This record gives sequence, structure tokens and C-alpha cells, in this order.
Amino acid sequence: MSLDAGGRGEEEDQSGPPVITFLSDYGQLDEFVGVCHGVIARRCPAARVIDLAHGIPRHDVRTGAMVLRDALPYMPAGVHLAVVDPEVGSHERRALALRTARQDRLLVGPDNGLLMPAAELLGGVVEAVDVGRSPERLEPVSRTFHGRDIFAPVAAALAAGTALDALGDPIPVDGLRRLELSRAQVIDGILAAHVLRSDGFGNLILDASRGDLDAIGIVDGGALTVRHAGTLHAARHASSFAEVPAGELLVYEDAQRMIALAVNRGSAAELLGAAPDDEVVVRRA
Amino acid sequence: MSLDAGGRGEEEDQSGPPVITFLSDYGQLDEFVGVCHGVIARRCPAARVIDLAHGIPRHDVRTGAMVLRDALPYMPAGVHLAVVDPEVGSHERRALALRTARQDRLLVGPDNGLLMPAAELLGGVVEAVDVGRSPERLEPVSRTFHGRDIFAPVAAALAAGTALDALGDPIPVDGLRRLELSRAQVIDGILAAHVLRSDGFGNLILDASRGDLDAIGIVDGGALTVRHAGTLHAARHASSFAEVPAGELLVYEDAQRMIALAVNRGSAAELLGAAPDDEVVVRRA
Amino acid sequence: MSLDAGGRGEEEDQSGPPVITFLSDYGQLDEFVGVCHGVIARRCPAARVIDLAHGIPRHDVRTGAMVLRDALPYMPAGVHLAVVDPEVGSHERRALALRTARQDRLLVGPDNGLLMPAAELLGGVVEAVDVGRSPERLEPVSRTFHGRDIFAPVAAALAAGTALDALGDPIPVDGLRRLELSRAQVIDGILAAHVLRSDGFGNLILDASRGDLDAIGIVDGGALTVRHAGTLHAARHASSFAEVPAGELLVYEDAQRMIALAVNRGSAAELLGAAPDDEVVVRRA
Repeated sequence: MSLDAGGRGEEEDQSGPPVITFLSDYGQLDEFVGVCHGVIARRCPAARVIDLAHGIPRHDVRTGAMVLRDALPYMPAGVHLAVVDPEVGSHERRALALRTARQDRLLVGPDNGLLMPAAELLGGVVEAVDVGRSPERLEPVSRTFHGRDIFAPVAAALAAGTALDALGDPIPVDGLRRLELSRAQVIDGILAAHVLRSDGFGNLILDASRGDLDAIGIVDGGALTVRHAGTLHAARHASSFAEVPAGELLVYEDAQRMIALAVNRGSAAELLGAAPDDEVVVRRA
Repeated sequence: MSLDAGGRGEEEDQSGPPVITFLSDYGQLDEFVGVCHGVIARRCPAARVIDLAHGIPRHDVRTGAMVLRDALPYMPAGVHLAVVDPEVGSHERRALALRTARQDRLLVGPDNGLLMPAAELLGGVVEAVDVGRSPERLEPVSRTFHGRDIFAPVAAALAAGTALDALGDPIPVDGLRRLELSRAQVIDGILAAHVLRSDGFGNLILDASRGDLDAIGIVDGGALTVRHAGTLHAARHASSFAEVPAGELLVYEDAQRMIALAVNRGSAAELLGAAPDDEVVVRRA
Repeated sequence: MSLDAGGRGEEEDQSGPPVITFLSDYGQLDEFVGVCHGVIARRCPAARVIDLAHGIPRHDVRTGAMVLRDALPYMPAGVHLAVVDPEVGSHERRALALRTARQDRLLVGPDNGLLMPAAELLGGVVEAVDVGRSPERLEPVSRTFHGRDIFAPVAAALAAGTALDALGDPIPVDGLRRLELSRAQVIDGILAAHVLRSDGFGNLILDASRGDLDAIGIVDGGALTVRHAGTLHAARHASSFAEVPAGELLVYEDAQRMIALAVNRGSAAELLGAAPDDEVVVRRA
């Protein structure tokens, strides 16, 4: 994956306000996102906050990590705040601010692996700070809303120019928690993949790439079968939804260059009854 | 409909940053809207993006077109980005940037009729460009996410001051695709209207205006009947929800000056079981 | 509750653009919020709008009032626009702009009690204006969308520096409508509380504080019972969700320092089948 999206990356205009991108599983129903915006605006009024996504399934660290990593090439350089934090309030889970090797970007969030795929895309972490007791935190720190009390104020301070090492205690980079991500396998002309996540339209993103389809001999527009939970479904490879009739299952390379299943004008998640981590076996028809 | 909303339109303060309004059917669950914001911020950091609506029913070009048109008088002049794009990725569907006759506004989106009612409100299209291969596009252009790869970068370039004709190839204005919009009819004292769309509260917006109610003799507060799918419902004309008891059906002129059906503290869509395109027959009781 | 959140309140950076915070029950599906943003941007292009929350349950004035009050300490000083307005369009309900005693903050919204708990947190109202016929309103004022036609333009004018008394007619402060808020009671070692609201995760916020738990002898981590609608549930006091097994009911002090019920990785609202105003009886196990 390219670090900078599109042909104009190198010409990026850097003259704007400091940017904080913000991803969470807080949803849009409650005031949690808005309160974090307020906290940021109080600490760094000049910052512009870009809401990357707040509909990450609750507590789904892996989906949050993948969305963050895949979206970063399209985001301006700045501070990248991410909060998917099932262990909020436990004493074991550290709060992090990280600097990456490339582009000098800053990542803020819990130490549960959420930030790591994005950091790796940016050349890895070169500096890590535990911000759990940052001087920027809002006291008294609640046990359930560290987005408001720790992460948002730390991100705002970074956007305002505060040095990373002034925000907490340095910690070793190699002790940061990482995620296990699955990977599709090709065996005897069969692609054994897994559902990484489904999006809001019921498209199922798999842990496979175009090369995996090539390896099992699937050509553009070719017929194939998809087996899930013991049921066999006929499908077609396609480059766009419009290439297959409404209601038909298709296999395509999605906008992040991952292989995905979709139903034109329908929901693949519903058709298959599939959920994250499920195995999906793809082969030529 | 007035082009500028309210009595202060002529005094509009033009001293702010360039504005991009953004309407889509991407929803709020996924990262699609946030990624487009990032793309815009990279290309034109000074631009302010106003999220007009992202809950347009998926692939419902007509609802998107009506919401865009009806909201425009309340939006600052600028670039109006709209993406409801069931044919994304097909080679037949062109990508457009348009300039309007009045107010010199710029519209960006697919060539499927989505932009045309808004353009007509602004005096029609005076310049049209096919931006499908714009130098601003992000390569490689995906087959499924032109909002990110084509429309957002083109809108950002326009906001940054790039000339329209530098963004693609000029195309004839009279070849642009238009929408068929239904229109209520008054026959023998009966109003035969159609459901254009329902909003998130279950209010049903019809293709009729106050003049149509006048034509069938309905006075302020008058009793009437609404026939849908063979079932007759008693209703009252009202100017506000609070004028009828909770649970009662009312017919009113909505905030866009369209005739609509509602249930006070309830849902007309649920009560009638009505959906877009359904015929609704209104007459005096 | 402290008026300014966290230890840095007194150092707040005031150099940013004028801020309008915006809370409503408009939801995110429709264009209502986006249209109000457009109206504000036309009248005061420099204003930054912070969307505090738009998922307040429809017409639920009390929940809106509590969310507004509880979030205010985290918001920059500015104009606080709030619209939960079941009586929109009736002639009895006045439209308000208020100035508070402390911090000189400005509140804009309907005269139905929505603004009052926030105003009381800020020392009470010192100046009140009826803005229903404000010179800033957008004519013709609709009967159903005063957010667009009255409240948003008034908030924008205030953000642009227009004097409060230029926006309408002064009205007596002691005639403003107030809300009745319930309050838990401790009787004979039993805590009789009420559900104030549930959030999007199914957590149930009660009208009780930590002191009420102390009064019935519940210690950190202690066992207790929760009775609702005749059914008894075992629960534990906990400081964070992670302290109890998945699926278990816990009683905790939430981020707003209110007592709340939750199910770790589940929904207390679903488990109990509880809704706002329901009585919940808590005692030691």
C-alpha cells in the first residue's frame, strides 16, 4: 500500500491549520464524540478535527485498526486520535502517544494494538510515551471515558505544538501490544480466507488480495463458488457492482485493494449469514 | 422557491473560507465520509466542509437530488459535492463538474441526474466538464469509491481556485442526464399525489403544493381523507404537529413548502405502510 | 459539578474563532442538521460549529437538557444552540436567547426547560430575550423547522457579535419554563432511584449519586441487588466494565459522576427491559 494516496501526495499543501483525525467506536447517537470535540477546541482552538469514523463496531479493536491504517494515506499529516478501548479503566492497559518513523506523524490511543498497523504503514514507532498520567489529563480522570479525560486533551496538546516527551513517561517501543491479523491461504487451488469485517452495506472484506485470486486461477469476470458454513454459493468476479444483476453475489477488489464479497443492491453479510472471523472458501466454478 | 433563503440573503457575509457542501448516501457508520474529508483537507486545507446529509437512502438518486435542491438556498455559495452513484465503476456513467448560471456556483457529482434539479434552481448549467479522467484524480482510481478518488479531489481543487476547464474535458450541456420527477394531479376535486420520500421521522413528502390543496377546497384546519393502497384514513389539515392530538394523521405544508403527511408523535410511513412512488389520494371529508 | 472540566480550565486558550455548540433531536439521517450548518455559515462564516449531539431521543426535552448541562463544562465558551422542540409551531411556546451569570455564555433554544439546567450550572439566567420574531429570522418562518428559521440564525448572529437585546424583546427571567427532574431517595437502607435515560450502548443512567450508594452501605466491588418491574437481578459495584465478567450486571459511577447500570459487553436496558422514568430499587446483597 502506498503511503500517500494518489499522484498529488508530494504536492500536499501544508499551509492549513493543525489537523487531528478522530476514529472511535463511540457511535453518533450519544454526546461522546461531541464532548471530545469540545475538549479539543478548549485546548487547541486552531485545530481542525476530521471525524474519520465513529461507527467502528463496539470494542472491535481489529476493525478499528484496519480502518485507521487503510484511511491514513488519505489523511493530512497531523495527530491521529483513535479510541476503541474495551479495557478502559483497567490498570493494565496503558494510554499511548506515538511518533512514527515516516512523515513524523503522531498517534494517540490505547495500548491494545489499535494504533500499530497504522504505525507500521508509517515505518514503525520511533518514540512512545505513556500518557496515562499526562499533565494534560482532565482531573478527576473517569474510569469509563478516557477519550474525554486523557486521549482528546493529549491529542489537542500535540496539535498545539507541545513536545511528545512533555506528555508522559517514555516507554520501550518493543513492549507495545500488537494485533494478530489473520491471512488467507492458498492450498491446492483453493483460497481459504476469513472475514475481517463487514461494512455498513453488508459487504464482507476478506483477508485476501488480488494475487490470491490469481493463484487459484480466477480471471476477470470469471465464475466461482463461495463456501461458507457448509453452504455453497455461486458468484462471479467483477470490477464493479453494476457488472452483475441485482441480487447476485460478486467477488471484487475493494477500494482498499482487499478482496471482498458483495451483493449488487443487497447485502452479502445477510445472504451468507457471515460474521467477522468466519472462514470463507473460494474456488473456480 | 426563492434562491436565497430569508430576508438577509443579500447581506451574506462572503469573508469566510471557501465552502464545500457534501451530500451522499455513504451513511455515518463507515469511514467513507471521513476519508473524503481527508482527501479534501489534503488538497485544499483552507476549505470548510459542511456535511449536508449522508443518510440519503442508498442509491436513491431522486431523493438525493431533491434534498440537494431544497437545501441549496440555505447553503453558502461555493462548491456543492454530491455522490449518490449506483452506477459507480461502469464506463457509461460520466463524472461531472458544472457551473450554474446564477451565483456562479459549482456542482460536482455523477452524471445521473443528481445535480440537475439543483442546477435548474440556479438558472441551469452554463458549463459542464467530464472529470472522470481529471488530472486531480487519485490514481489508481478504484471501481467502487469515486467519491474518494474523483469527486472529492475535484471539489477540493475547485475550492482551491482551480479553473473548471482545467479539471477535464468540456461536454455539451444538453447531453446531461436528467431525472423524471412525478407531479400530483387534480381531477374532479380529487388530488392524486405520490410519495416522493419519507424522512427519518416517518413523514411522507408528496409531489404536491399548497395550491393543489386549495384546488380541492381544503381550508386551514379542515377535515380530509387520505386513501393509500385501498385503505381510507381520516386526517386533518394542520399548520403544525401540535395542532392535532398525538397519534392523529395530519396533512401539512412542510418546511420546504411541499405537502406532507405526518402523525403527531408517530410515523405516517408506518401508519400507512407507504413507500416512495406510492399513490396517495387526498380529498375533502 | 465543576463548571470547568479538568485542571487546565483556567488556562483556556481564547484565541480561536467564535464557537457555536449544537445539540438537537434531528438525528443524522436527514438534512436538518446540515441545513442549520449552512444557515450559520451564511450569517457568520467565521463561526466554528461543534456538533454536541443530534441523537437525543425525539422530543425528549429532559434527556436533551441533561446532556447539554453535563457536557457544558467541556465546551469552549460561546453560543450554545439546543433544539428539542415538541411544541414547534404552537403559539404558546416562546423562542429564547439567554445570557448566563457566569462566564457570560449565551444559550439559544425553545422555552420548554431545555436550556435551564445548563443555565443553572452557569449561575442562572441574567438576561432573556424572546427571539420568535427576531430581525434575524428567515422569512417566511416555517411551522415545523424553527431550528433553521429562528434558532440557527439567532445563534449565528450572536456568534458574529450582535448584541442580545438587538435580537428580540426582553422577557422576565422568572417566567421561563423549568423542568421537573426526579431525585433518588434513600429509605431504610434501600435506594429507590429512577432511570433518567439510556445511552446508545444500553447503559441506564439513574438519578442517584455515589453518596446514595454510600448511604445504603455499598462498598467498592460489593455485591448488591437491583429490582426492576418485579424482577430481582444480582449485580456488583465496579469502577470499570472490565472488572466484571462479560454479560454481568454492574453498578458504577459514570463519566458524569451519576450512578448507572451496565452489562459488560452487553446492554443493561435490554437485560432489565427498562425505560426512562422506571423505578429501580438498589440494595446490598
